[in-house]
Amino acid sequence: MQLTFLGTGGGMPSPSRGVSAIALQFGGEVLLFDCGEGTQRQFMLSTVSFMKVAAIFITHFHGDHFLGLPGLIQSMNFSGRKAPLAIFGPPGMIDLAKDLISLGHFTLGFDITAGEMTDGDGADVGALRVTALEVEHTVPALSFVIEERERRGRFKADRAKELGVPPGPLFGELQAGREVRIGELIIEPTMVMGSPRKGRKVVISGDTRPNARLTEAAAGASVLVHEATLDASLIEGARSYGHSTALEAGQVARAAKVGLLVLTHISSRYENASVLETEAREVFPRVVAAYDLMTIPVPFPKDEMEGL
Amino acid sequence: MQLTFLGTGGGMPSPSRGVSAIALQFGGEVLLFDCGEGTQRQFMLSTVSFMKVAAIFITHFHGDHFLGLPGLIQSMNFSGRKAPLAIFGPPGMIDLAKDLISLGHFTLGFDITAGEMTDGDGADVGALRVTALEVEHTVPALSFVIEERERRGRFKADRAKELGVPPGPLFGELQAGREVRIGELIIEPTMVMGSPRKGRKVVISGDTRPNARLTEAAAGASVLVHEATLDASLIEGARSYGHSTALEAGQVARAAKVGLLVLTHISSRYENASVLETEAREVFPRVVAAYDLMTIPVPFPKDEMEGL
Repeated sequence: MQLTFLGTGGGMPSPSRGVSAIALQFGGEVLLFDCGEGTQRQFMLSTVSFMKVAAIFITHFHGDHFLGLPGLIQSMNFSGRKAPLAIFGPPGMIDLAKDLISLGHFTLGFDITAGEMTDGDGADVGALRVTALEVEHTVPALSFVIEERERRGRFKADRAKELGVPPGPLFGELQAGREVRIGELIIEPTMVMGSPRKGRKVVISGDTRPNARLTEAAAGASVLVHEATLDASLIEGARSYGHSTALEAGQVARAAKVGLLVLTHISSRYENASVLETEAREVFPRVVAAYDLMTIPVPFPKDEMEGL
Repeated sequence: MQLTFLGTGGGMPSPSRGVSAIALQFGGEVLLFDCGEGTQRQFMLSTVSFMKVAAIFITHFHGDHFLGLPGLIQSMNFSGRKAPLAIFGPPGMIDLAKDLISLGHFTLGFDITAGEMTDGDGADVGALRVTALEVEHTVPALSFVIEERERRGRFKADRAKELGVPPGPLFGELQAGREVRIGELIIEPTMVMGSPRKGRKVVISGDTRPNARLTEAAAGASVLVHEATLDASLIEGARSYGHSTALEAGQVARAAKVGLLVLTHISSRYENASVLETEAREVFPRVVAAYDLMTIPVPFPKDEMEGL
């Protein structure tokens, strides 16, 4: 599972940052969170294929979060896509998707389904569940909590060997949940597999003021992607426009005890985002300011990693 | 007067080429021809300010020629624009402009007027006249002929000195069309100015098959920007999709006796466009394949340049 930040700028792009778009790759599929203008080209500059996007989640309807949809859809079409595409967003998504698909002359060659999500609604994409959380912006806006469904337990190789299973293909059979026969003995997977483990969790804030509900939802996340449009000296502007400062993002990360905080939606006034990183790091140590085309792996929950 | 090629790719962008957009700067204003997705960011990467765009001309309603409009308009708005903006395009432009302006949550702080042009319609922007020409694509499509209105004649400094006008501010008065008094003598501008000279002409083809009407309209143009989506080996594809080959663009340029041919709308299959340049050069010597952010001055008509 990995995240690629296709666009990390604020309301307007800049020479170095496109507008909002984040790709999450998992199990051969891509989930796209927001799709600002230029996202299709950012895909081309990255190692992620836009043809593998199975579902798109839009946080809210400010232009910098969705105006790349018609171009992306038309280029998918131009590239011969046949696989269906799901688009989710706040109420209004269905009509907006219809409007966007009707722009310009072209004949859509694949199915698009649009869905509207409000607080607590979930959508399953492959082995992931995406849950919407209403947050605090100047217009209706969602955060998204992405959770890996329960993973199988750890394979106890030593125990399998004790039971007479030779290392090799039979190990794979057991790990895949199938029994194997060793002479007269039938080995059940449960005999050699640990308890199911907690899956990974990623939270993407979208545009929002910091808020307790988001903090709660982000508890223990492997990665929290939190907007940090401004630095703490501009807190009044952040309040007025429904945004967060880097310090506030750090405070959310600290309270939620996340594995890693990634700052994004960075105003074009910051030529160098290290001021934001430094500010968040005052309250939370594990922080990185996203840059366009940055890719990070999503690690397993920390307690397990320490056990490895 | 100069042209900046903001996006030079075909139907889809590529890592090296954005989709269609060409800025023409003249007299402190910018005219924009087509506005594909990402045009606002290409402006930011160029030396041309999108705040100076006075009018936008859309050749046709394929997505790669207009999907950058809503983002550009919203960023102009975000940047505090108050000056009105005119948008022209083929029939349907008025409804489309309304649809595009209604996308997403924002309050427009300046006036936008939309106008529809059919064959022969003209629009004046500053000292330029833009005339639409219906051309041959798979959907209704326009070429645009941009003409500098007649320029004043050359100033005859020697004649002015003979008449007793001292070099200096009074020369400027005469050049500006105002009479000056030297003792008892009144010098009229017509006494020291040559005949009005032909202005510059630029022709932008948009997407089209090569055609006789465009060739005729381009006669003697300083610059012909002609699409060259494909090379001559793909002539059947060009015919099917209403595009031109580089060879065909060269043939138009030769027949129209233009000063310079610029090839654009280059398919993403060409990593290196020199194959297209070479092909066009077989029939017309003065040709360049556009690349993103290329800027070229628009020279005065050739006969005058030779006289300088």
